[in-house]
Amino acid sequence: MTGVTERAAPGAQADTVDELAVDTLRFLAADAVQAANSGHPGLPLGAAPAAWVLWSRHLRHDPADPDWPDRDRFVLSAGHGSALLYALLHVTGYDLPVEELRRFRSLGSRTPGHPEHGVTPGVETTTGPLGQGLANAVGMALAERMLAARCNTGGHRVVDHRTWALVGDGCLMEGISHEAASLAGRLGLGKLTVVFDDNDVTIDGPASRSCADDVEARFRAYGWRTLCVEDGTDLDALDQAYAEAAADDERPTFIAVRTTIGHGAPEVAGTPKAHGSPLGEEALAAMRRRFSWPSEPFHVPADVRAAVAGRRQRWAAERAEWERAHARWRVEHPRLAAEFPLDRIPAPPHLAPPADRPGAGGAIATRKASAAALTALADTYPALVGGSADLASSTGTAIPGGDVAAGEYAGRTIHFGIREHAMAAALNGIALHGGLRPFGSTFLVFSDYLRPALRLAALMRLPVVHVFTHDSVHVGEDGPTHQPVEHVESLRLIPGLTVLRPADAAETQLAWDLAAANLGGPTALVLSRQNLPVLGDEGLDDARRHGARTVADPPGAPDVVLAASGSEVALAREAAAVLADRGIAARVVSVMWRERFEEALEAGTFRLPDAPVVWVEAGVRTGWRAVAGPRDAVVGIDRFGESGKGPDVATHLGLSAEAVARTAVRVLGA
Amino acid sequence: MTGVTERAAPGAQADTVDELAVDTLRFLAADAVQAANSGHPGLPLGAAPAAWVLWSRHLRHDPADPDWPDRDRFVLSAGHGSALLYALLHVTGYDLPVEELRRFRSLGSRTPGHPEHGVTPGVETTTGPLGQGLANAVGMALAERMLAARCNTGGHRVVDHRTWALVGDGCLMEGISHEAASLAGRLGLGKLTVVFDDNDVTIDGPASRSCADDVEARFRAYGWRTLCVEDGTDLDALDQAYAEAAADDERPTFIAVRTTIGHGAPEVAGTPKAHGSPLGEEALAAMRRRFSWPSEPFHVPADVRAAVAGRRQRWAAERAEWERAHARWRVEHPRLAAEFPLDRIPAPPHLAPPADRPGAGGAIATRKASAAALTALADTYPALVGGSADLASSTGTAIPGGDVAAGEYAGRTIHFGIREHAMAAALNGIALHGGLRPFGSTFLVFSDYLRPALRLAALMRLPVVHVFTHDSVHVGEDGPTHQPVEHVESLRLIPGLTVLRPADAAETQLAWDLAAANLGGPTALVLSRQNLPVLGDEGLDDARRHGARTVADPPGAPDVVLAASGSEVALAREAAAVLADRGIAARVVSVMWRERFEEALEAGTFRLPDAPVVWVEAGVRTGWRAVAGPRDAVVGIDRFGESGKGPDVATHLGLSAEAVARTAVRVLGA
Repeated sequence: MTGVTERAAPGAQADTVDELAVDTLRFLAADAVQAANSGHPGLPLGAAPAAWVLWSRHLRHDPADPDWPDRDRFVLSAGHGSALLYALLHVTGYDLPVEELRRFRSLGSRTPGHPEHGVTPGVETTTGPLGQGLANAVGMALAERMLAARCNTGGHRVVDHRTWALVGDGCLMEGISHEAASLAGRLGLGKLTVVFDDNDVTIDGPASRSCADDVEARFRAYGWRTLCVEDGTDLDALDQAYAEAAADDERPTFIAVRTTIGHGAPEVAGTPKAHGSPLGEEALAAMRRRFSWPSEPFHVPADVRAAVAGRRQRWAAERAEWERAHARWRVEHPRLAAEFPLDRIPAPPHLAPPADRPGAGGAIATRKASAAALTALADTYPALVGGSADLASSTGTAIPGGDVAAGEYAGRTIHFGIREHAMAAALNGIALHGGLRPFGSTFLVFSDYLRPALRLAALMRLPVVHVFTHDSVHVGEDGPTHQPVEHVESLRLIPGLTVLRPADAAETQLAWDLAAANLGGPTALVLSRQNLPVLGDEGLDDARRHGARTVADPPGAPDVVLAASGSEVALAREAAAVLADRGIAARVVSVMWRERFEEALEAGTFRLPDAPVVWVEAGVRTGWRAVAGPRDAVVGIDRFGESGKGPDVATHLGLSAEAVARTAVRVLGA
Repeated sequence: MTGVTERAAPGAQADTVDELAVDTLRFLAADAVQAANSGHPGLPLGAAPAAWVLWSRHLRHDPADPDWPDRDRFVLSAGHGSALLYALLHVTGYDLPVEELRRFRSLGSRTPGHPEHGVTPGVETTTGPLGQGLANAVGMALAERMLAARCNTGGHRVVDHRTWALVGDGCLMEGISHEAASLAGRLGLGKLTVVFDDNDVTIDGPASRSCADDVEARFRAYGWRTLCVEDGTDLDALDQAYAEAAADDERPTFIAVRTTIGHGAPEVAGTPKAHGSPLGEEALAAMRRRFSWPSEPFHVPADVRAAVAGRRQRWAAERAEWERAHARWRVEHPRLAAEFPLDRIPAPPHLAPPADRPGAGGAIATRKASAAALTALADTYPALVGGSADLASSTGTAIPGGDVAAGEYAGRTIHFGIREHAMAAALNGIALHGGLRPFGSTFLVFSDYLRPALRLAALMRLPVVHVFTHDSVHVGEDGPTHQPVEHVESLRLIPGLTVLRPADAAETQLAWDLAAANLGGPTALVLSRQNLPVLGDEGLDDARRHGARTVADPPGAPDVVLAASGSEVALAREAAAVLADRGIAARVVSVMWRERFEEALEAGTFRLPDAPVVWVEAGVRTGWRAVAGPRDAVVGIDRFGESGKGPDVATHLGLSAEAVARTAVRVLGA
């Protein structure tokens, strides 16, 4: 095949079927954007050659089975270039008919504005928020290595694929790209290749206006191999670069491909104008003439269809060969096949309480109870892997099974470093990859650092578990920078994120069981730094089914209910004792899972007595005010904390048994 | 003076007063941590030499006046090393008596666990969340250059100082360090120096376990000059490195200083154990013997006091000279002195409505109305500077006055690049620096990317204005990754952050006026992408004082109130029309500023009629449910959005006039 040199100018007629295919991608994308009158033509026009050479010659995939476990993963981190991805999927024969391209960006289509995992076959992850896809790809590449280390035994190689990510200037300017690339370098993820669509244009102008990085030098500083394709329309050069990338399994590879944004588009090529607006009918028509392209939109030349048909046979044969090998592996290694089913995330066993769990009357921080539950879970759930953003000892998340490191992927504990954001996005990548069940951990206050990735986990319904410890002003001396106040509530605002704040060791055990069983979305476990009294197992079934349980009840009808979450349940119990001394009977309810609790109240499956409620949580009151009725009150903290001993700070901010009791007296009008 | 070579081993007796001062810092810090029985001795012990040489020989400051505008800024980005900073402040004579060191980490002390700006004289910024201080320092260094370009006229040099940041491994692993360092490189901030406490230890083990970066190569890739001090106890080498850094004004300088965490501490030096736990009485006593240090805690040798006294004279003389120069400048340039008072952030003028503001009956997106208001404000408020994370054209935040670039600091528009997090933290740094009033902008959905820095702005009460546009599912085709749902509410959860969501051009004008006048904390302006009808000026005074205004009122008593924010006010008006057709009288209230509105309701200064309320906002319902009474209802969106035309998506998710009207009928039981 011939490269760009034989084409006199951008837009000259294609000489080869590959060039024809590249132009097909360009026009499919431009046509889709034009039909939607919305979208981003710039990246597809510039990056079509890089994408085509990758997809047609290097990507190991089978459009007939987008879920083939051993396929290469392709991540369009620059998600605004979705039209290119849809064009690739359509042309290579994924189940994405031309009608869907025509419906680009329409409600209910399979071609949403940014790629959405679960909506479109072949879309490996939801991208658009910049940099996320790159970090997802790091997680996928790590999952591949970790699964390979587990499954490729006895001469089998059932896990042996690569991960490719196409990134833009925006991805690389975002901080998460640093965290992710540095992590990948440290972990030696040699089967990861990042292709940089280096067009030197961002929305506000030339990229150089805001960025003067030597990007390749930067990636070399992370321990990556770097390559450069000076002419991003040179198909041979691209081919060679991908081949070189695939030849190095020790280091991840970064390929800078110099492209022209909006390549071939009259007036706007090479300018920010090409980025995010349709070309317009007139310019598109002029471009058709320049490329000698048929006038009807969404045209796929017969030569391209024929060439793809040939490749599809090869792809299908490759997959069939793998299927046979996989079948043999399953027969020879049934236990491995059960533990690591490759095609999905395995469900966990039911989590039995650990034998040495402290009984009622003892006291233990829920972060420590979590560590015990996690270790027990890890024992019976081999697919469980995870780690911490350099706080393993504080969050209690180092599990038996050894560390993961470059060349040592059989371990289970990943040292993400002080990189919360890349951790969360890499966990998403591991979950997307399948075969392993990921968890991560940091302090609750630093959930802000990873929030964009957590949101995407919720949007994609990925079963990632986040362990967030040090969950309130009880953090104490570290002060307001380390004391979460608004965080529990702000997590509850994310649709689809299950937020559990257990009150004691028993509820923590339950919380881990619920988290493990929740394969339909992410779960956040919100845990205390400080010791909390163990309340025991009574009512745990209510907590499981209805999100709440009664943990203290006076004889007879209660005058007031004290409903709290997490560490404030102990406080509520103390307040109940204070009230009892004053002749007021208080029931204490632990609301571990507020969302489920509200559903249960609504459904009448969990009932509160006909009495005012004082709701207590060491954080902003907004969400509890939403639950509270007109005669209730909410005790919380609507301000930042202070540095001091935890109990001092809590009391100073109005979180004392006496203060809660006073509020109860007030709502009773007593 | 002599360096480390004459000291046989860590802990040998100090030979010079500088060595004595270094040991003084070490023991003050270790004693403070021991007294608190909480804190981080590791960094202070290792970095004391680097800090002392900087503070005693290079930092331009005067402990007698911590607010001297032309002082060098020192930022302890590794905020957990607070004990070192407090020791420096105490020894050099800031108003931080030894009693405060003894009260380290106690409630109400001036020595909180992490440095807090506003609590301790000489603490330039609140640090602890890693990487933030580095990005603050970039903002400070930029502010210095921008102020210098404005004020240093006619031979005056009233603005001429440097910015120094001490960072640790954690700061450099965080993504924000990439964004900030890359931005500083692009902007050529030559008066910025970052000192890296390169101790190769993180909480979970050797830093190399999670990070293999060639950090110096990485910074060179950003366009920084890099230096290395191989022995972080070599005072001469440190001295020389700082001198070299100060000699280069074209490029920021990165100095890697190899240190030993917990230097000199028995058993734990060089290990993670030195990081975050007190040494213990026994080990501290052993360390005292090793350093031949007196046994009483918080000892400051007389020689050190004498040496500092001499330096304080020099510092005071330097400041006095500057005060004279500043006085001359103020006389010669009274207008400049009024516009850029240097010692504070100047207050804005009252913002008059622009002459060409569209009147009632027109329609304009609030982001566009914001652009007009911002331009008008910029005209009369020279201190106002800011920019966007590569979305200036979308957010409407390019103001007249030209761009800021390397060597061109007289401009007003900063191209932050696709770096939301560093943008927000740099804005904090500009506000902390004083003299300029900063704003930034991005899409609302990406407020998640900068949330940690926004939280710190609120904690420090910095008057930063954030313009967040594209504020709901009305974003449309870009889909759920770009459609904020939980974001407005999650911003409202941050204590001290003023969140304004204006309904039309008139309210947007008011919102900018309120934001500009709010010098007591950050403000978030939440603005629409799509056009909204202009409601006119009636009731604006209510909106200003009470956070809400009535925008449509039926004759007679209303049957129902439709209370909405932002773009949903127009929807509520449509719903009121639908209800009117059915004989139901609805008042429509625009709640631009919910927090103030709630205060006004509480105080009775703004009243709602005795009728049920339907609250409407295109986002999660939690916060409005908190406001709602028992007979009210809330229309919102408790799920992620979808890709499609804005109106299609909104209707699909239940945000239509008909749906709101139906809800009103329901609450009326009609």
